[in-house]
Amino acid sequence: MSRAPFNLFRDIPKEFNQELVAKLIDQDAVRVERIVSRGQASPMGFWYDQEEHEWVAVLAGMAHLQIKGVEQLVMLHAGDTYHLPAHTKHRVAWTAPNEDTIWLAVHWKSK
Amino acid sequence: MSRAPFNLFRDIPKEFNQELVAKLIDQDAVRVERIVSRGQASPMGFWYDQEEHEWVAVLAGMAHLQIKGVEQLVMLHAGDTYHLPAHTKHRVAWTAPNEDTIWLAVHWKSK
Repeated sequence: MSRAPFNLFRDIPKEFNQELVAKLIDQDAVRVERIVSRGQASPMGFWYDQEEHEWVAVLAGMAHLQIKGVEQLVMLHAGDTYHLPAHTKHRVAWTAPNEDTIWLAVHWKSK
Repeated sequence: MSRAPFNLFRDIPKEFNQELVAKLIDQDAVRVERIVSRGQASPMGFWYDQEEHEWVAVLAGMAHLQIKGVEQLVMLHAGDTYHLPAHTKHRVAWTAPNEDTIWLAVHWKSK
C-alpha cells in the first residue's frame, strides 16, 4: 500500500509566528488551502473583502469569525463549516491560543 | 455567539445502508460534499470515470482507494488527502467496517 501525499493534521511545526498556509489545489480558479492558526487573528478594523467565494471548515481547534454588520460572532468548533460568498466582509476575531486551529478553505470564482 | 450551520462530524445517523452524501456547496461548477461510509465500497469491477476533477480528504476513519492501472492501493488515514484529476479511473476498495469514515470531497470542472 502507498500513503497519500499530504495529511491535514500533520506537518505542523512546533512553533510559528504567522498563520501557516499550505496550498493544496490551485487550478481552474479553484483553490484549496490548509491553514493553521495558533492564536492569530485579523488586526482590529481589518476586513477581508474577497472577489472569490470561500467555504471554510474548522477541522480542529476553535475560532471566532466576525461578519461585518452582524452583531454576533460565529463560533466555529471542530467540524463546523461556514460559507462566505464573495465580498462578505469578514475577519478572524479569535483563534484558540494554546492549540492548533486547522482550517480547510475552498475558494472559487464565479464564471 | 451563533453556531455555524453544518458540522462535518455530526448529524450522522446510527444506522445507514448506503453511503451518506451531504451536498454543502453546489455553485459555479464547484461542489463540496461530506460523505460518510461505514464499510461501503465500490462494486468489484466498477470504476468512477468523472468529467470533474476531485480532491478528497479523509477526516476520520480509514479507506483504501484503488487507481486503475496502479498496483498498490492508496491507504487513506484521518487527515490524508488525494487529488483525482478528471478521468482518473478509481474505486473505493475498502472503508473501515466498524467506524464512520468521513470524507470531504471537492469537485470542479475545467473551464
